[in-house]
Amino acid sequence: MKKGLLIVLSGPSGVGKGTVIKELMKNENLNLSYSISMTTRLPRNGEQEGVNYFYVSKEEFQKAIADGELLEYAEFVGNLYGTPKAYVEKLRNEGRNVLLEIEVQGAMQVKEKCPDALSIFIIPPSIDELAKRIRGRASEPEEIVQQRLEKAKKEMELIPQYKYVVCNDDPILASDIISAIINRHMQI
Amino acid sequence: MKKGLLIVLSGPSGVGKGTVIKELMKNENLNLSYSISMTTRLPRNGEQEGVNYFYVSKEEFQKAIADGELLEYAEFVGNLYGTPKAYVEKLRNEGRNVLLEIEVQGAMQVKEKCPDALSIFIIPPSIDELAKRIRGRASEPEEIVQQRLEKAKKEMELIPQYKYVVCNDDPILASDIISAIINRHMQI
Repeated sequence: MKKGLLIVLSGPSGVGKGTVIKELMKNENLNLSYSISMTTRLPRNGEQEGVNYFYVSKEEFQKAIADGELLEYAEFVGNLYGTPKAYVEKLRNEGRNVLLEIEVQGAMQVKEKCPDALSIFIIPPSIDELAKRIRGRASEPEEIVQQRLEKAKKEMELIPQYKYVVCNDDPILASDIISAIINRHMQI
Repeated sequence: MKKGLLIVLSGPSGVGKGTVIKELMKNENLNLSYSISMTTRLPRNGEQEGVNYFYVSKEEFQKAIADGELLEYAEFVGNLYGTPKAYVEKLRNEGRNVLLEIEVQGAMQVKEKCPDALSIFIIPPSIDELAKRIRGRASEPEEIVQQRLEKAKKEMELIPQYKYVVCNDDPILASDIISAIINRHMQI
């Protein structure tokens, strides 16, 4: 059986990655598995081990880092999040294409460890459109909106590090384009 | 029957438009008709009326311009080339998606006359790669190669005028992406 692809998907918060990924997951021909992260965050109501996250203690997480067991990791508001290498490898060896939805810093770590990873960056049609989407989604104070836009611009500086850039003007078309990319890489 | 799309495809000389278009034309589901141009150029050996070009006299061409019968036209080395509006409309009314392979100046004329045209610009992965392709294709003196690269850069300044930009790293993937774009526009 051919080993599955490792697909790294990044893009600024608000660009609509979630909708695009939902469309991608509907397409069974892509043989996609959405990668579940490991975290030190406590499970929220209704969350399940191995469905939403793999929940571990801070000590276990740090041991995993020290033992080189993570493809990438990052800290957010005091909690650690990472991608277990063995879990991803197991899926890929079963022929599954593994989809990692991660931020640019994590993506750079994956790129170093897996040079064969297929990296895709989703961009908004424009910064104005991104601002509109962020404003439309949550009624956050303008200051927070501006902070998110600044963060997006910083993230977009790393676009040249990605193999493909796909514009999310229409999530169905964006997912069709990503499907074409994945299908092509399944052939070659 | 739904009216066919008008698809405008541009890209610098050497980017590999020909190969991409050949791939696109193979896909019968796209229902594509490659638009035949009208020209004042004389037929070359083996060329056929209505297959390679519609051959007309300079007077006929200028009358067509004056009567507003062309979607776009341009002069190259003393000959006139243009796209007859009625011919394109007839194909579109038969439900065919009409593919126009034209230079940026022609594309801007079409955009003005047909704001519903679906415009796609094909870019090379990099200017270096474009230079490599131009050098690989014909053994032209370096001066000519540099002129073609300068022209390509000038053309690429008009990229923001196009609805979609597709990178031709791999002509099969590029044609798959363009197919996804056309299919999506056939639905909406």
